[in-house]
Amino acid sequence: MPDVRVVLVEPKIEGNIGAVARIMANFDVNELYLIHPCEVGDIAYRRAKHGAFVLDNAKVVESFDDALSECFFVAGTSGIITKGDRNYARVPIPVHSFAERLRDYTEKVAVVFGREDVGLFQDELVRCDALVHIPSSEKYPILNLSHAVGVVLYEMFKFEIKPPMPADNEEKERMFKFFDDLLEAIAYPKVRRKCTSTMFRKMMGRAIPTKYEYNTIMGVIGDAVKEIKRIRP
Amino acid sequence: MPDVRVVLVEPKIEGNIGAVARIMANFDVNELYLIHPCEVGDIAYRRAKHGAFVLDNAKVVESFDDALSECFFVAGTSGIITKGDRNYARVPIPVHSFAERLRDYTEKVAVVFGREDVGLFQDELVRCDALVHIPSSEKYPILNLSHAVGVVLYEMFKFEIKPPMPADNEEKERMFKFFDDLLEAIAYPKVRRKCTSTMFRKMMGRAIPTKYEYNTIMGVIGDAVKEIKRIRP
Repeated sequence: MPDVRVVLVEPKIEGNIGAVARIMANFDVNELYLIHPCEVGDIAYRRAKHGAFVLDNAKVVESFDDALSECFFVAGTSGIITKGDRNYARVPIPVHSFAERLRDYTEKVAVVFGREDVGLFQDELVRCDALVHIPSSEKYPILNLSHAVGVVLYEMFKFEIKPPMPADNEEKERMFKFFDDLLEAIAYPKVRRKCTSTMFRKMMGRAIPTKYEYNTIMGVIGDAVKEIKRIRP
Repeated sequence: MPDVRVVLVEPKIEGNIGAVARIMANFDVNELYLIHPCEVGDIAYRRAKHGAFVLDNAKVVESFDDALSECFFVAGTSGIITKGDRNYARVPIPVHSFAERLRDYTEKVAVVFGREDVGLFQDELVRCDALVHIPSSEKYPILNLSHAVGVVLYEMFKFEIKPPMPADNEEKERMFKFFDDLLEAIAYPKVRRKCTSTMFRKMMGRAIPTKYEYNTIMGVIGDAVKEIKRIRP
């Protein structure tokens, strides 16, 4: 994940700034720049909760240039998506593609969020290296400012965390062998055996079980086979 | 995208309910069930903005069972992720995997969000078919309720919208041909020509340009070649 700076352009609603600080802390992003913000007081701090330190360290700046100092890449966000792709300043990329492309980028990236009411102006948009778009309802595409920040940072953060380890191939094959043993033990019709065995494989494949889950299922099937053999050897 | 119902279990903060209604409208999700909620009044409506209709149609119910009526699949959410994967009721799947697996599912799915302070209880978790987890900071993993709803619905919604059409292979090859013509026209050193041509291909490949962008670049290169030939035929 790159080193991310969140830039809010002329935010007007104090509660939004607080909510942005909280969601930033939720995704380990600490650097907040505010261009001509409204007052940041009690309301903001109450919404920030454990993200208060982000507000404490926020920098208030006077211009777009100041907010982008030291940044290698500037991404703007917009709720407004152009129909064609000819107005270059407005050609957006979906936020998930953006996050994926910057996945191994390690320099500082500014993600700029426009005003609550009118977004970013044309002269601000042309300063951005990319325009990031959050897919949303055609009927009501405008997200609350902090929700827009949340979705963008979520997409950038999500690959940082690894899911629980899935079972490896050897473990899987052992389990499928146990399942075949079970079909044998219950004298499952030979003509349907291959088909059912394949179905079980496919189904378990879709479930992407963890090691623990595979081992547990294997234990259950193994015990069933043993028990059947004990009852009718 | 499945037919999604959002269920909030005992929400205590009115503003959160309003913010949830707005973000639901942002992602075309209309069905909100509230189990023992706080009052839903002016504060909620002010936060809901154009999502007010979601509040108007919200159903207040008395029990978990009532909230899950007619649902084919129940997903719970939790900010708390278990270290191992043995406590089955708490084994979470990341929200992007969850959304991907349900992508072609068309039945009604309930996504259940727990209390702002203590989340879902054990007896509620065991009622869920899946526990969905939002990857977040180890230091501060607890998202605001409406932000959690936002990330889950965003993941479920995002595949609904298609990005602008990328250029097809024929168009690309024509552009690369034009680029090679340009290298020829400028008498680019023969020894470096193949390498530069390949670099151009790789770079354009990474950019995944749209049809319009390819055609524009091709036009520029084509004109340059023509101009050079005109000047020194």
